[in-house]
Amino acid sequence: MKPKNILIFVGKYLINNNYMQDTVQNNDEISSLGEFGLIRHLTRNIKIKNTSTLAGVGDDAAILDYGEKVILVTTDLLTEGIHFNLIYTPLKHLGYKAAVVSFADIFAMNGIPRQLLLSLAVSKKYKISMLEALYEGLLLACDKYGVDLAGGDTSSSLTGMTLSVTALGESERNKTVLRKGAKKNDLICVTGDLGAAYLGLQVLERERRLYHDHPDLQPDLSNYSYLLKRQLKPEARADIIRLFREADFVPTSMIDVSDGLASDLLHICNASGAGCKIYADKIPIHPATIEAAGEFNIEPLIAALNGGEDYELLFTISPGNYDKIKTQPEIAVIGHITDKDEKPLLITPNNTSIELKAQGWNATEN
Amino acid sequence: MKPKNILIFVGKYLINNNYMQDTVQNNDEISSLGEFGLIRHLTRNIKIKNTSTLAGVGDDAAILDYGEKVILVTTDLLTEGIHFNLIYTPLKHLGYKAAVVSFADIFAMNGIPRQLLLSLAVSKKYKISMLEALYEGLLLACDKYGVDLAGGDTSSSLTGMTLSVTALGESERNKTVLRKGAKKNDLICVTGDLGAAYLGLQVLERERRLYHDHPDLQPDLSNYSYLLKRQLKPEARADIIRLFREADFVPTSMIDVSDGLASDLLHICNASGAGCKIYADKIPIHPATIEAAGEFNIEPLIAALNGGEDYELLFTISPGNYDKIKTQPEIAVIGHITDKDEKPLLITPNNTSIELKAQGWNATEN
Repeated sequence: MKPKNILIFVGKYLINNNYMQDTVQNNDEISSLGEFGLIRHLTRNIKIKNTSTLAGVGDDAAILDYGEKVILVTTDLLTEGIHFNLIYTPLKHLGYKAAVVSFADIFAMNGIPRQLLLSLAVSKKYKISMLEALYEGLLLACDKYGVDLAGGDTSSSLTGMTLSVTALGESERNKTVLRKGAKKNDLICVTGDLGAAYLGLQVLERERRLYHDHPDLQPDLSNYSYLLKRQLKPEARADIIRLFREADFVPTSMIDVSDGLASDLLHICNASGAGCKIYADKIPIHPATIEAAGEFNIEPLIAALNGGEDYELLFTISPGNYDKIKTQPEIAVIGHITDKDEKPLLITPNNTSIELKAQGWNATEN
Repeated sequence: MKPKNILIFVGKYLINNNYMQDTVQNNDEISSLGEFGLIRHLTRNIKIKNTSTLAGVGDDAAILDYGEKVILVTTDLLTEGIHFNLIYTPLKHLGYKAAVVSFADIFAMNGIPRQLLLSLAVSKKYKISMLEALYEGLLLACDKYGVDLAGGDTSSSLTGMTLSVTALGESERNKTVLRKGAKKNDLICVTGDLGAAYLGLQVLERERRLYHDHPDLQPDLSNYSYLLKRQLKPEARADIIRLFREADFVPTSMIDVSDGLASDLLHICNASGAGCKIYADKIPIHPATIEAAGEFNIEPLIAALNGGEDYELLFTISPGNYDKIKTQPEIAVIGHITDKDEKPLLITPNNTSIELKAQGWNATEN
């Protein structure tokens, strides 16, 4: 690789002149750490310098102290072909979803999103009307959630589209909720239902393959309306944050379900230094998800545990606050927090205990 | 293009079911608007909803009101092959520069950067040690400028590396400086010198071509030390912001020189509704820039006007504040603001007036 040598040469020149030099090894695969391990690894030496930085890396949003209120800020990078596929994602939906996903991170801290910044890099194949469609969806979400689009920029890319979405929000100092904070015996709660977005993606992937083989077929998606909506136009749970305010209590820990229930619950357990026990038959799954799961030969529970992209809220509450949520149809209690010495467990309907893994429930493992 | 039809099909289904549909035209080239025109176009209908949003799209950073102080936030998206070339950019330098460039946006609002968020998307060719080098540079810049790395995420990309850098900073309410605010007769000032980063890039590009043709040559870059530093390890002008605080005055408008003096001065004129008159022989250019410009057969003035990536501060002050800056070796007065009916003009040493264009000075135009 010729270019490499130039880099090394320039690098050598630079270090001889007190510039900085990269020491690149060639045997250290990123996959050996995984995404979360990689972030932990890269940020392990960070020391906070400013009193305004209340919390940084390691939660859904950073917490900044700039006066009476704290500010929450979260940033996401979405790349074409990895985070979205334009073959079946209309750009208006992509804009809507990109905004909502970042609002979900602010809600997951018990905050209210206020501002959004969008940076966009697009290759030459993109037309103005395509970016207009993206912005339309983004602004529609901003309107619905009362958020201002407050900045950003647009530049070129060599291939495809990359979106960087930064959301800012506010919270009262003593009402901000982190991933850490779950205590033994706290109840584990989740909103709405899980796994639908994943099945929606399976439907779209099947259509893509069908179209490839039979471009003249006109498939009927009307049976999958709920699943497609969850995949293409998800909503974030502003209603639950209002409910916390109205019921005047604060969860002990919270996260939004973006990676899947199993992975996100383990984030709470790891951050809180605790174990957990959840019950398979308490996990809320929509009838449409169960039906489609049958068609795709997928266990609905696996879709709920590992599917991701649900953007529901997963939180823990002190047992004493149970009365405040027990009549809420949108909140299900799925288990409780255990000692940190205990493993995170999933209890099946026939009372078998299975260890919960970040990749979710493993059917072969019992 | 088959995939397109699937999108249209899914889109049709979605609109029939009250989803949203993109209307994509195929004849609207982004190049017809240009980057700045595109941003203006896409953000033309934004209405601010939150009282905490003091200023949004259209400046170096958004201004948010969350208490006694205002918060500044800026976000940049950097894509491989467009914003940086890893052939001659060591990753440590890339991290350093990415951070400094975002701090420069905060300084350009007369603010102090406090937090930085980095999101990263990388393809499989990247190794852990490469990302470590990137983070090392980023954290070195954070340390130097007293900024906390407070969040971000890491994900995959299909090709190359994309960085999204978000910086937050603070300012006092009545000391925040926008691009708008320049008044007739205000003095136009610029810090440091201009055009060096552009010449540094020319040196690196020449080395790349030389290496391609003669891989065994060992070129000597020692003559270009200053230029390479300006290109590969730029600094932002924290010192000038301190000087404003100490001298107890506030510029009437300000921007950092990222696109080039001509383009950035026109941003100030457009935002302020004013014209300007600057003098070619007042524009500060480093001797090393002039020398290298001769080698590359480039007019030094053109490098200064159009080169970009200088990250110096360009600002305007009331004539009454001239005494406060006149002895500062790092600040040059290069002209003054004129009526909005007057064109933005560059006056050459032989007293010819040339209209300043966003692409800078055009030698064939006189």
